[in-house]
Amino acid sequence: MALTASASLPRLSLGEIEDLHLDGTSKGLPFGASLRLSDVGKQGWNVLAGDMPLPLAVIRESVLKANSAWMGAFTAANDLLIAPHGKTTMAPQLFDLQIADGAWAITVATVQQLAVCRRYGVKRVILANQPVGRQEITACFEALREPGFELYCLADSTAGVALLAEAAARHRNANPLRILVEIGFMGGRTGARSREEALAVARVIAASPGLRLSGFECFEGLLSEPKAVDRLLDEVVATAAAAEAEGLLGPESMVLSAGGTSLFDRAGECFNAASFTRPILKLLRSGCYLTHDSTTYTASFRRITMETSLALPPGGLEPALEVWAYVQSRPERGRSLLTVGKRDISFDSGFPVPLRWYRPGGAMVRPEPMPAGHTVLALNDQHCHLGTPLESPLQVGDIVAFGIGHPCTTFDKWGLLMLVDDDYRVTGAIRTFF
Amino acid sequence: MALTASASLPRLSLGEIEDLHLDGTSKGLPFGASLRLSDVGKQGWNVLAGDMPLPLAVIRESVLKANSAWMGAFTAANDLLIAPHGKTTMAPQLFDLQIADGAWAITVATVQQLAVCRRYGVKRVILANQPVGRQEITACFEALREPGFELYCLADSTAGVALLAEAAARHRNANPLRILVEIGFMGGRTGARSREEALAVARVIAASPGLRLSGFECFEGLLSEPKAVDRLLDEVVATAAAAEAEGLLGPESMVLSAGGTSLFDRAGECFNAASFTRPILKLLRSGCYLTHDSTTYTASFRRITMETSLALPPGGLEPALEVWAYVQSRPERGRSLLTVGKRDISFDSGFPVPLRWYRPGGAMVRPEPMPAGHTVLALNDQHCHLGTPLESPLQVGDIVAFGIGHPCTTFDKWGLLMLVDDDYRVTGAIRTFF
Repeated sequence: MALTASASLPRLSLGEIEDLHLDGTSKGLPFGASLRLSDVGKQGWNVLAGDMPLPLAVIRESVLKANSAWMGAFTAANDLLIAPHGKTTMAPQLFDLQIADGAWAITVATVQQLAVCRRYGVKRVILANQPVGRQEITACFEALREPGFELYCLADSTAGVALLAEAAARHRNANPLRILVEIGFMGGRTGARSREEALAVARVIAASPGLRLSGFECFEGLLSEPKAVDRLLDEVVATAAAAEAEGLLGPESMVLSAGGTSLFDRAGECFNAASFTRPILKLLRSGCYLTHDSTTYTASFRRITMETSLALPPGGLEPALEVWAYVQSRPERGRSLLTVGKRDISFDSGFPVPLRWYRPGGAMVRPEPMPAGHTVLALNDQHCHLGTPLESPLQVGDIVAFGIGHPCTTFDKWGLLMLVDDDYRVTGAIRTFF
Repeated sequence: MALTASASLPRLSLGEIEDLHLDGTSKGLPFGASLRLSDVGKQGWNVLAGDMPLPLAVIRESVLKANSAWMGAFTAANDLLIAPHGKTTMAPQLFDLQIADGAWAITVATVQQLAVCRRYGVKRVILANQPVGRQEITACFEALREPGFELYCLADSTAGVALLAEAAARHRNANPLRILVEIGFMGGRTGARSREEALAVARVIAASPGLRLSGFECFEGLLSEPKAVDRLLDEVVATAAAAEAEGLLGPESMVLSAGGTSLFDRAGECFNAASFTRPILKLLRSGCYLTHDSTTYTASFRRITMETSLALPPGGLEPALEVWAYVQSRPERGRSLLTVGKRDISFDSGFPVPLRWYRPGGAMVRPEPMPAGHTVLALNDQHCHLGTPLESPLQVGDIVAFGIGHPCTTFDKWGLLMLVDDDYRVTGAIRTFF
């Protein structure tokens, strides 16, 4: 049974994840642990009590849920849809939360990620890439044998579409592979560099049985100059209008899509201002909003709240993801070594920032904000070099919470992240599939 | 039954890994796959035939085995021992290869890594860190309840040793926690910054029931200036001599240890030149030698072969690890986009280098060396921007092998790496535990 464009996705089947057996060979679990994933939250473990080895990645559950709900409210209030980029977390449990908050689809980057979505019951997937290999293309058309499963992918060249058209002819599915033509920009990533190229790609798709031209999209996240962002988004709209005028589109609603986590407001504003003769699905694909971060996206969200003309629901995005580590050594003035490294935390979008510290087993009631002057100097594979001011309270055995930049590259370092309440009691565990 | 210092380690129990059930939700496996890990090599899959989705991490089996054997021969020829750093691969199947080639122990960085070693039967482990948290320390003493299991860890402060001594008194194991005092340097990582501090740590260890002072070590891998490296290694020897003169050491052989993958020759030379009244175990801890790399370690190994006074067996280390990707788009002159990104390949020690290319299904007999001028410009999470000269042969759908820098940060992006023969036929799969 086909989903309608407005239908919300069914919730996922997570029993297999809940039943996973875990032990101390999983990073984050105590020595000697042996339990089902769904029992992790019942152990009474607390990060502050030293109940788990560090480093440990934790997600503050109240913040996570508020972020997810905020994005649901934001998109609903502005006549937008969201297909959260699942590559950020690769956690079906979190996909399910996003679906409960109204996600229209889940976006992925690879066919392995598509396989994870399908395994747990995601019924509408945006593969935000052009599949080019034999296995990749086969995976798409095999997925479409499932009645009612909707799959969108991207294309930016007639050479690429030819590969898809050939496979479509071979598979003869009733269920079409929906394609969004990607609009790019010079010096950018994938995406047609001119309107003529984009329309040429659109024409080949429209003429290919088994493929369906479903819309146009771009990824604006690599641009920083606001005018360049608007120019790219405008080009998506203009190309879509030209395709509509040329009669390339079928009767379905047309998808216009864009939106990483730093500029989703501009995508929403641009698409909302456009007018077409057919219904338009204005689709954001932000992934990092869910846990947000403590550096880059904090700054970009501040800009959004100050600049956007879109409706902003109460509250807003807050950082939910932290990695905790021990102070292992204070071997010289000005430098501490902590038990967290490149294997555990993002370092591709600035170094992590120390947020809070705590002394387990002592008199402290709760973590204290990290005093000024503590700065990450370097990360090795398994160590953090923390610049430590003379008056620092840190001692060997203290624990420190780091805020992260770029959630994607922290999530992918953990098979298991702990959900915690506001007092750092463990309430559950999130399994990732990288 | 205790291992003797010279005893080789027993081979590991890998049945559980061989029996692991795999499917298309594992990165690297084809859509619809459903098989035991030990059957991966029996499928007739070939990377060049497009039998697996890309990106795919492959290890050239012949090179891997030659590297492992070379290090065994090198250490044997120079009266050295090796405890390969297991954090590099976190693959018990590869630990087993290293043990077969004479590894004296496996080195790890965390208690999760220790748990993986124990689970598959490694009987002697160097935890190259000071454990400081309650769970971390408990994990060590619980591990020592296993008769005959030998565990070494590091210490660099009396505060740290106090935590261990307290736990030792509580656990009352017959089997001691062996400790190597870490010698550091100003501006470096962990490790005592002066001989007096190091000896103070050694004295506390020697006086603590349940702890055993087993030697001295350093990590020289963060230094680049040769004189600074030699000074650090000399300090390890001098501190060990002072501890021996002071009568701090028991009757066991003393361990002197150092040696990342770029400077292991200097560690060997320095330790071989030292003289003590007791037997010395001269222990290298290189991890990256096993797969080697195509950038940093290639350069450092060249230096070793030119400079060292140690015996060099025939052959030498060669890069065994590659990540393959598709050319997904050639949207503008000078730039191609490939299906590999920060989620798939190291980027912390220079960008990957394109080594070879191939056109599946065409007339090419084997991969061709990548013509000059192809250079990685940027990596996004799931994309590679490849600078592509005008005369490049690359087309959409071609595949490219990237050589990597710093194996640790490529291994940790894969739950499964494929073993391949010299014709890129898949001969097996390696499971990692990050």
